[in-house]
Amino acid sequence: MNTSELETRIIERGRTFFEAMNGEAPSVFDKGWWTGKVMDWSMRDEDFKVKLFRFVDALPALTTNESLNRHIREYFAADSGELPPVLRAGLKSASVVGRLRGNFVVKGISKNIERLARQFIVGEDAKEAVKTLQRLRKDGFAFTIDILGEATVGETEAEARLQEHLDLLAALEVARRKFKPLGGSNGEFDWGGEPIINLSVKASAFCSQSFPRDFEGSVRGIYNRLAPVYRRIIEIGGAMCIDMESLDQRDITIEVFKRLRSHDEFRHYPHLGIVLQSYLRDVDDDVAGLVDWLRSEGLPSTIRLVKGAYWDHEVVRARQQGLAVPVYTVKAETDAAYERNARRILENADICRLACASHNVRTIAAVMEMARELGVPEERYEFQALYGMAEPVRKGLLSVAGRVRLYCPYGELVPGMAYLVRRLLENTSNESFLRRSFADETETDSLLENPEETARRERAARPVRPDSGPGVAPFVNEPAADFTQAAVRHAFPKAIARIRREFGATHPLFIGGENVVTGDVLDSYNPADVSEIVGSVCQAGPAEIDAAIAAAEEALPAWRATPVAERTKCLFEAARIARSRIFDLAVLQVLEVGKQWDQAHADVAEAIDFFEYYGREMLRLGADRRMGRVPGEVNRYRYRPRGVAAVIAPWNFPLAISAGMCSAALVTGNCVLYKPSGLSSVTGRVLADLFVEAGIPAGVFNFVPGRSSVMGDHLVGHPSVNLIAFTGSERVGLHIMQMAAQVAPGQRHLKRVVAEMGGKNACIIDDDAELDEAVRHVLYSAFGYQGQKCSACSRVIVHEAIYDRFVPRLVDAARSMRIGPAEDPACVMGPLVDRVAQQSVLEFIDVARAEGSVLLSRMPDGGPGGVDASQGCYVPLTIVEGITPEHRIAQEEAFGPVLAVMKAKDFDQAIEWANSTRFALTGAVFSRSPAHLEQAARDFAVGNLYLNRNCTGALVERQPFGGFAMSGIGSKAGGPDYLLQFMEPYVVTENTMRRGFAPIGSDDDWV
Amino acid sequence: MNTSELETRIIERGRTFFEAMNGEAPSVFDKGWWTGKVMDWSMRDEDFKVKLFRFVDALPALTTNESLNRHIREYFAADSGELPPVLRAGLKSASVVGRLRGNFVVKGISKNIERLARQFIVGEDAKEAVKTLQRLRKDGFAFTIDILGEATVGETEAEARLQEHLDLLAALEVARRKFKPLGGSNGEFDWGGEPIINLSVKASAFCSQSFPRDFEGSVRGIYNRLAPVYRRIIEIGGAMCIDMESLDQRDITIEVFKRLRSHDEFRHYPHLGIVLQSYLRDVDDDVAGLVDWLRSEGLPSTIRLVKGAYWDHEVVRARQQGLAVPVYTVKAETDAAYERNARRILENADICRLACASHNVRTIAAVMEMARELGVPEERYEFQALYGMAEPVRKGLLSVAGRVRLYCPYGELVPGMAYLVRRLLENTSNESFLRRSFADETETDSLLENPEETARRERAARPVRPDSGPGVAPFVNEPAADFTQAAVRHAFPKAIARIRREFGATHPLFIGGENVVTGDVLDSYNPADVSEIVGSVCQAGPAEIDAAIAAAEEALPAWRATPVAERTKCLFEAARIARSRIFDLAVLQVLEVGKQWDQAHADVAEAIDFFEYYGREMLRLGADRRMGRVPGEVNRYRYRPRGVAAVIAPWNFPLAISAGMCSAALVTGNCVLYKPSGLSSVTGRVLADLFVEAGIPAGVFNFVPGRSSVMGDHLVGHPSVNLIAFTGSERVGLHIMQMAAQVAPGQRHLKRVVAEMGGKNACIIDDDAELDEAVRHVLYSAFGYQGQKCSACSRVIVHEAIYDRFVPRLVDAARSMRIGPAEDPACVMGPLVDRVAQQSVLEFIDVARAEGSVLLSRMPDGGPGGVDASQGCYVPLTIVEGITPEHRIAQEEAFGPVLAVMKAKDFDQAIEWANSTRFALTGAVFSRSPAHLEQAARDFAVGNLYLNRNCTGALVERQPFGGFAMSGIGSKAGGPDYLLQFMEPYVVTENTMRRGFAPIGSDDDWV
Repeated sequence: MNTSELETRIIERGRTFFEAMNGEAPSVFDKGWWTGKVMDWSMRDEDFKVKLFRFVDALPALTTNESLNRHIREYFAADSGELPPVLRAGLKSASVVGRLRGNFVVKGISKNIERLARQFIVGEDAKEAVKTLQRLRKDGFAFTIDILGEATVGETEAEARLQEHLDLLAALEVARRKFKPLGGSNGEFDWGGEPIINLSVKASAFCSQSFPRDFEGSVRGIYNRLAPVYRRIIEIGGAMCIDMESLDQRDITIEVFKRLRSHDEFRHYPHLGIVLQSYLRDVDDDVAGLVDWLRSEGLPSTIRLVKGAYWDHEVVRARQQGLAVPVYTVKAETDAAYERNARRILENADICRLACASHNVRTIAAVMEMARELGVPEERYEFQALYGMAEPVRKGLLSVAGRVRLYCPYGELVPGMAYLVRRLLENTSNESFLRRSFADETETDSLLENPEETARRERAARPVRPDSGPGVAPFVNEPAADFTQAAVRHAFPKAIARIRREFGATHPLFIGGENVVTGDVLDSYNPADVSEIVGSVCQAGPAEIDAAIAAAEEALPAWRATPVAERTKCLFEAARIARSRIFDLAVLQVLEVGKQWDQAHADVAEAIDFFEYYGREMLRLGADRRMGRVPGEVNRYRYRPRGVAAVIAPWNFPLAISAGMCSAALVTGNCVLYKPSGLSSVTGRVLADLFVEAGIPAGVFNFVPGRSSVMGDHLVGHPSVNLIAFTGSERVGLHIMQMAAQVAPGQRHLKRVVAEMGGKNACIIDDDAELDEAVRHVLYSAFGYQGQKCSACSRVIVHEAIYDRFVPRLVDAARSMRIGPAEDPACVMGPLVDRVAQQSVLEFIDVARAEGSVLLSRMPDGGPGGVDASQGCYVPLTIVEGITPEHRIAQEEAFGPVLAVMKAKDFDQAIEWANSTRFALTGAVFSRSPAHLEQAARDFAVGNLYLNRNCTGALVERQPFGGFAMSGIGSKAGGPDYLLQFMEPYVVTENTMRRGFAPIGSDDDWV
Repeated sequence: MNTSELETRIIERGRTFFEAMNGEAPSVFDKGWWTGKVMDWSMRDEDFKVKLFRFVDALPALTTNESLNRHIREYFAADSGELPPVLRAGLKSASVVGRLRGNFVVKGISKNIERLARQFIVGEDAKEAVKTLQRLRKDGFAFTIDILGEATVGETEAEARLQEHLDLLAALEVARRKFKPLGGSNGEFDWGGEPIINLSVKASAFCSQSFPRDFEGSVRGIYNRLAPVYRRIIEIGGAMCIDMESLDQRDITIEVFKRLRSHDEFRHYPHLGIVLQSYLRDVDDDVAGLVDWLRSEGLPSTIRLVKGAYWDHEVVRARQQGLAVPVYTVKAETDAAYERNARRILENADICRLACASHNVRTIAAVMEMARELGVPEERYEFQALYGMAEPVRKGLLSVAGRVRLYCPYGELVPGMAYLVRRLLENTSNESFLRRSFADETETDSLLENPEETARRERAARPVRPDSGPGVAPFVNEPAADFTQAAVRHAFPKAIARIRREFGATHPLFIGGENVVTGDVLDSYNPADVSEIVGSVCQAGPAEIDAAIAAAEEALPAWRATPVAERTKCLFEAARIARSRIFDLAVLQVLEVGKQWDQAHADVAEAIDFFEYYGREMLRLGADRRMGRVPGEVNRYRYRPRGVAAVIAPWNFPLAISAGMCSAALVTGNCVLYKPSGLSSVTGRVLADLFVEAGIPAGVFNFVPGRSSVMGDHLVGHPSVNLIAFTGSERVGLHIMQMAAQVAPGQRHLKRVVAEMGGKNACIIDDDAELDEAVRHVLYSAFGYQGQKCSACSRVIVHEAIYDRFVPRLVDAARSMRIGPAEDPACVMGPLVDRVAQQSVLEFIDVARAEGSVLLSRMPDGGPGGVDASQGCYVPLTIVEGITPEHRIAQEEAFGPVLAVMKAKDFDQAIEWANSTRFALTGAVFSRSPAHLEQAARDFAVGNLYLNRNCTGALVERQPFGGFAMSGIGSKAGGPDYLLQFMEPYVVTENTMRRGFAPIGSDDDWV
C-alpha cells in the first residue's frame, strides 16, 4: 500500500468514526450542565479560566466556610464585588443576586466543583472504585487503575504509598472474581491474553529522593519499592504499567522498567508495560531504543504511547532554566510523532504490544489503518481512554475496535484536584482535539488532516522572530546544569578527578600585572575532609595593599578612558572562558567550600550571568543621555567611574559574588583590589586568572587575598580607596561603613560602600498552602548548601490551621535527605565550610535546643558505606519548634542548617513575625489566597520576596538580589540600578549658540 | 484700488524687477569665487556649515600659526584627517593633497575668510571707510554707517564707544565736503531733505548695565551717553537711527528714542530714526504705538522697518526660558507683517518716513506699489540694503526707486566676525529670500506670492504635534521671569510692599498636623537692613523632634500605602499653588535672604520644577517593572520608601532646595521632618503651608526648625530616622555622614545620607575664548547672589595668551556693576545673608589680600542716593590675581563675592588646576576649540560642567545637579537617578505555575 492509499483509508476511517459519534458530546462539554457552562466560559475568558483552575486547585485545602467564602470572593469577586453569572448557574436563586451573602452560593459552587472532580475519578475508596470498574467492564471496557496521591516528599510517605498499592491489589484480588473476562475465550484474561487486573504506577510515588543528578540512587530507590508491587502483580496474575511523568524522571523511569523487566526474578513474566510520550522531541530515540532493547533481550512488553500531559511544565522548566525546549511546540508535530512511533511499535508487534492512548480520532484511525496495513494481530494492540473524558470516542472505539481500556484514577479528592486541573486543561486548551471536536465544531476534514501537513502549515505561519540585529544579543541567563543529560552527570566525576590532581599548589598574589609571592600563606582545605589541602594562598599585608593601590591608581586614567565597548568586551570574554570551563570551576567549589553539584554549577553560571548582564548594562548606561530638548543647549548626562574599588567578597558564593562585584567595578571603569575570603581564595585566584585571560590590563585588576586582621582596616581606610564593595557579615559590614564615613588626611572624596550583609529569612505557610510544593521549597531554602546563604530560610512560620499537616511532612522529608560530602551527588546536605563555622553553628544549635523543642537533629549516616563525620565540618541538620519572635534563634542569623518552626495564629501575625527581625533580605509565602499574596507583596518587608517558591537562588536580571534594613543598602546585584553605585553621574552642558546662531539638532524642540 | 488690483500690480512690478536683475548674482553666491563655493557647500551640508560658521567666529582669536593650524584641523579634519576639498578650492595645489602640511593651506583659508569678512565691511579705519563711502555715493547710493564693536561689558568700554562715535562723526564732518548730494537740488541734503551723514547706533554699546529688570536705570544709562552723540549729529546736520537689537532691549530702546526725540533740547530736529522688526509677533503694536506717539507729540521721524536679524536668538532664548516664542515661526508671516506695517507707516507718511530695509523683491515691490497707491511723496520713503549683499537688488532698486541707502558697517575684523556670521546665516538660511532667489532658482512666481497666502499654506502643511494624550503632560520647566513684560517688572514692587506688611509675625512649628508654639524663638532679619525683622520662628528641641518622629512613624503606613498617583497629585497641587503666588514667594526671599529679583523668581520656579518633575519621575518609577520574560514566573521590580526622612536644608536656595528634598522624600512615600536653615525659616514655614494646602496628610510632613547645636545630632542620630537629606556645608555634611554610619541601640536599618556640600568651582578661559560672553558669564557665576551658591565660580583660570585681554575687561565689568539691596532691581550684587557670613567672608578676603594682588575691592556706592553699607551685611566684591593652586583661596570655599584669578600656561595646566581641589561640583570652560571642549568633557572632573556658559543656574531635568569628591555623593537633584535614593528596591517573584499549568502572559517568552 502506498502512502496516499493509506492516507485515504485513514481519512475514510476517521469520517466513519465521526459519523458514529454524531450528536454525542463528552459530558464535560454538555452545556445543560453547570460543568459545561463553566468550561464554555473558561474557553472564552482566559482570565476566568486561570482563576477557576487555581481555585479548583485550592479548593480541597479550604476546610472552613470562612475560608471557602473568602477564597471565592478573592478569586471571582475581587474586581466588582459580584460573582460572574456563570458560577451561579444552576444554583436556583433569583433571590441570591450574586452577592456573597451567607454560604448558600459558596457551598453550591464548592459542591459543583467536587462533582466535576468526581467525574474523572472512579472512586474515593476501594469499594467505590471496584463498583465503578465493575460497571465499566459490564459496558465492555477494560481498566487500568491508578492511585492518586500527594507528592512523595519523605520516605515515610513512600512507605505509605507502597502499602496503599499493596492494599489496592489485595482489594482487586478479591474483586477479580466478580470481573468477567472481556471479548475472549480465556477465563483468566481479557481479549485472549491481557490480565484483567491492570495497575498503573508512578515511579516518583515510591521514592522521595529521586532526582536526575543522582541517577543510580534514584533508580535503586524506586526499584526497591516497586519490586514488591510487581511481585504482588505477578502473584495475582495482573499487569503493571509504569507511567511516565515529567522529563526529569524519564531516563530514571526507563531504567527502572528495564531492571524490573529483565531481573531474573521477573523476566519470565510479560505483563509489564511502560509509557512513552510523543510530545518529546526525542521520542523516536526513546521508542527505537526501547524496542531494540526488548528485542535484544527477547522480552516482550507493552508500550503505552501517549501524547504527553506535562507540556506547560516542560516548556516552563526549560525556559526558566535556559534549556532547549524538549517538547514539540507545534501540536501537530506531536501528533505526527505519535503516528510515526505507533507505526514503529506496530512493526515490532511481535515483541512490543501497543497501547494506543489518545482521544484524537485521526490518531486512532491512523493506528487502526497502519495495524491493518501491517497485518498486526488484534491482540497485539489496544486502545486506551481516560475515564470521565471523551465518552463518544470511547464508545466509538468500543464498537469499532472492541479493545478499549480506560485509565481510571482512584483516591481522595485532595490529591485528585491536581489530576482534575490537568484534565480540565486538556479539555480547554486551544489545541485540544476534544475541544476542537466537541466544543468548537471545527471541520471534520481539518481534524482528520495528516498532522505532518498541519505541522508544515503551522510552522510556516508562525511569526518569524525579529532578528535582534547586529551588536550584542539580548541578555539570557546561563542554562542550569541539565542532569537529565548523561553527559552532564558524567562530567562532574571526571572534573573532580582532574581538579583533585591539581591540589596543593601555592598561589601568589597578582598586583600590577605581576604575580607576587609572600612569606605568609594560608591553606584552604576540603570541608568534607579537613586533611585534604586544596591549595595554599599567599597573603597580602599593608605593603602589598599599598603596592596594589599604587598600581590601580596608575592604571586608572587609561582604563577610565577606555571606551565602554572595549571594557565590556573583556567581560564577554571572561564569560566565554568561564563557560568553556564550567565543570572545572564548579567542581573547585564542590571541593573547596563543600557546595553540591547543582549549586556549584549554578554559582559559575551566575558569575557568567554577571559578566553578560553587567556588560550589557554598561552598554546601556555608557551611552550619553540627552537631557532636555531645547535648542541652543545640549545636556549630556553621563557616568564616570569612582576610581579605586576594594572588593571584599565572601566564600559562600565564591565565584558568583566575587565575579559580580569585580566585574561591576571593572566595567564601569574602576580599578579593583579584590580580596576573596580566605576560605575560598583558590577559587578567588581562578577568578583573577579569568580576568587576566579576558584581557583586563595590568593594574586594573589586582588579586590581594589577606587576613582581615592584618590588612582589612588598612585597605578600607586608605585615602585612595573610593569605593568598597562588600558582601559578608553584618558585623564586618557595619565596621566597614563606619570606617568609610571617616575622612582620612589627604582624602579627596567621599567613600561609597556597596554592602550586602545578613538575613534571617522566613517562609510563611498559609492555611491554604500547597504542601507538596511548600515542603520541598522550604527544605531547599533551609538546608540547601547547609543553610550557608544569606538568603537561606531559617524560620518557617506556619499558620496554626495547617501546622499539623505541614510540620510532620517537613520533618519526614528532612529525615529522608542524604547528608554527606558534596562530591557525592546523592547528598543534598554536606559539611559546613570550616571548623570555625562548625563550632559557631553548634553553639547556635545549643541555643536552639534550650529555646525550643527539637523535632529533628540529624548527622550523616555513619557505618559501613556511610560517612565518617569527624573528618569533615558537619553539624546536625536541626529543626526546632516552639519558637516565637522573642527567641534568639528567631532573631540571629544561623548560617547553618538550623530551622526554627513558628506557629502563627493567623496570616497577619505570620507577616508581623516575619518582619520582626532587623534584617530584610528574602522571604517566601506559600498561599493560594490572592489577597494574602498581595498583602505579602505589600507588607512583607524584604528585598526579595518569593510567592509560592523557595527564597534562595535569585537569578541575575530576573531576580535582582539584595535586601535593606540591616541586610544591606538595597543595592540589588544583578539589577538595573546596580552599576549606578559604581559610578558618579555628571552632566556636560554645552551652550551651542554662538553669535545668535544655534545648530539645529534633530532632537531639539524648536517651536 | 481694490486688493486684487494692488496684488496684480505688485506681482507685475516684481517681475519687472527680476527681469532687470536677470543674470546677475550677488558676489557671495558667485561660484567662480572661493566664497561662492563655500557658501554652496554650506547650503548642502548643514554639519559643514555649522563648523564653518563656528570657525569663522573663532578666527580672529587665533593669533598664532599653531593655533590657526590646530583649529582648522579640529574643525574640519577631525574625522578623516583630511580637509574637505571645498576648503582647498582656489588654493592652487595639486601638490597640497589636503594634508595640513606646513602653513600654506591654513594661511590660505584664513586669508580667504578675511576677504569674505571684508566684503561686508566698508573699512577697518575711518580713512578706508570714507573712501568706500565716497565710491558708493559716486555710484548713487546713500549710506548709514555703523560702528562694529565688541559687546560693552563695562563702563570704561561704554565710554570708549562714546568716544569712537564722536571720533567717527568728526571724521565724517571733515569728509562731508567731498560728498556730493544725491538726486536732489539742495546742496546740504540727499533726495530733497535727507542729511548726507547718517549714523546708525546700537543702544547696548553705550551702557554696560542695561537689562530689562532695571528698565529705568537702563534707559537713563543709555540716554546719558547717546545724547552727546545726537548733539554732535545735530551740530553737523546729520541723521541718526537707533538700531534695534534683541527683544530684551526693545522696550528700553523705544523709550530711549522717545526721550531723545521729545527732549526739549532735541525736539526741533527731525532726523532721528528708529528700527522696528516685523518678525516680532507684536510688531503691529510696536508700529501703531510709535506712529500714534509721533503724531500725538507732533514729532516727525523715520522708522526703518526690517524683518529682524535675531531669529535664532529669540527662539532659543524663549525656548530655553520657557517663554512664548516672540517671533513668527513661519517666514512668510514675517513678510506679511512687514507689508501690513509698511502700509501703516506709509499711511502716516506725513509724520513718519519709511525706510524700507529688505532684500526681498516681493517686499520691495509691495512697498513701491502701496506707496504709489497711497500717493506717498517720494521723499517720504526710501530703500535700504546691506553693504556687501544682494548687489543685484540694490542695483535694481537704484534704477527703479532712485533712493537707496546702504547699511555700512565699519570697524575692526574681530568684532566684525560676529556681523559676518549673521550675514552668512542670512545668505544660507533655507528660508532666505536671497538664497532662494539667487542660489536656489526658485520660480519667480513663488517668490512673488502674496506672503499671507504662503503663510496660510505653510501653516497648513506643518505637522500637527502629536497630542500627548490623557494623563500627565510631559515635564517642562517653569518659565523664567520675563522682565521684558512691564507687568512682571511691576509685580515685584507691589509684592514687596505686600510682604513687608506681613513682617514680624511669630511662626510656630508644625507637627502631626498641628501648629506647635515653643518658648524659644529665633528672629530672621533682612540682610540689607539688619534692623528689619522678617519674622520670628519657633525652635524645636529634642522633645519636639521626638514628637515629630512619633507623628511621622504613625503616619507612615498609610502614606506608604497611598497610591503613587495620589501622592503625586499633592506635588502637582503644590506646584499649582506656588505658581499662583510666585511673586510673593520670590519677594520673601528678596527680603529674607537678599536674593536678586530674577534669582529669587528662579528659585521659586525651581521649586515648582521639582514638584512637577519628581511627580512625573515617581509615576515612572512607581510602575512595577517586570524582570525576565520566562513563563511561569512573574518578577516585579518595585520601590518602597525608606521610612522617616530628616530633611536639613540650607538658606541660599531657601525654597527650591527645601522643596526638592522634601518633595522627593514625600512623593516616594517617606514621612518628613523638615529643618530649614535658621536664616530662611520664614520661607521654610511658607513651604510647610504649601504642603498642607496641597493635601499632604497630618504627620507626613513636619516643620521643625531648630538650632543645630540643640537638636541636630538628636535628629540625625535618632534610631527611627532612616534617611537624611542634607544640603549645606562640607563640615556639617561629613559630621552627618559619620553619625549616620553609627548604629544606635534599637536601630533596625542602615541610614541613607543624601548629601550635597561645598564647591570650589573654576571657570577656564581658553586662549580662543569669546570674551564678550566669557566676561559676562564669569561675573554672573562669581557674583550672582553675592557668590553664595555652592555652584558659584570662585576661581577663574585664564590662559596666559589671553590674560591681558580678558582680565581688564573682567575688572571693568565688575567695577560697573551696581551693589546694593536686592530689592532694588538695579543692583546685581547685595549683602551677604547675615553678620556671621559677613565676618567669615571678610576674614577670607584678608587671606586673599595676603596671598594675591587685589584687582578690585568694591563696596556699595555710598553718598546721597547711595547705600548705607553699615545697615546691611555687605562685604567688598573682591577680585584677586596672582593665585596658584597652593593658596588657601584656591582651595577653600568662599561662599562670598571673592574671585581668585589664576594665570595658566596652557589648557592642560588649566584643567589640572581646575581639578586640584578636593571639591568637584561645577565648572565652566570658555573655548572655541572642539578638541579642548571634548578634553574638558572628559577630564574636567565635576558634577556639572558647562561649556561656554556660566556654571550656576542648573535647571531641573535639563541639568541634573550635584557633585562628587568632597562636594557630595553624586545624587544629582532634578535628575533621573535622584528619587532612587529615597527608596529601596525590592523584587516580588511569583511562581505562577500551579499543577504544571502556567497562565500565558502577553509578555512571556514561551518558545
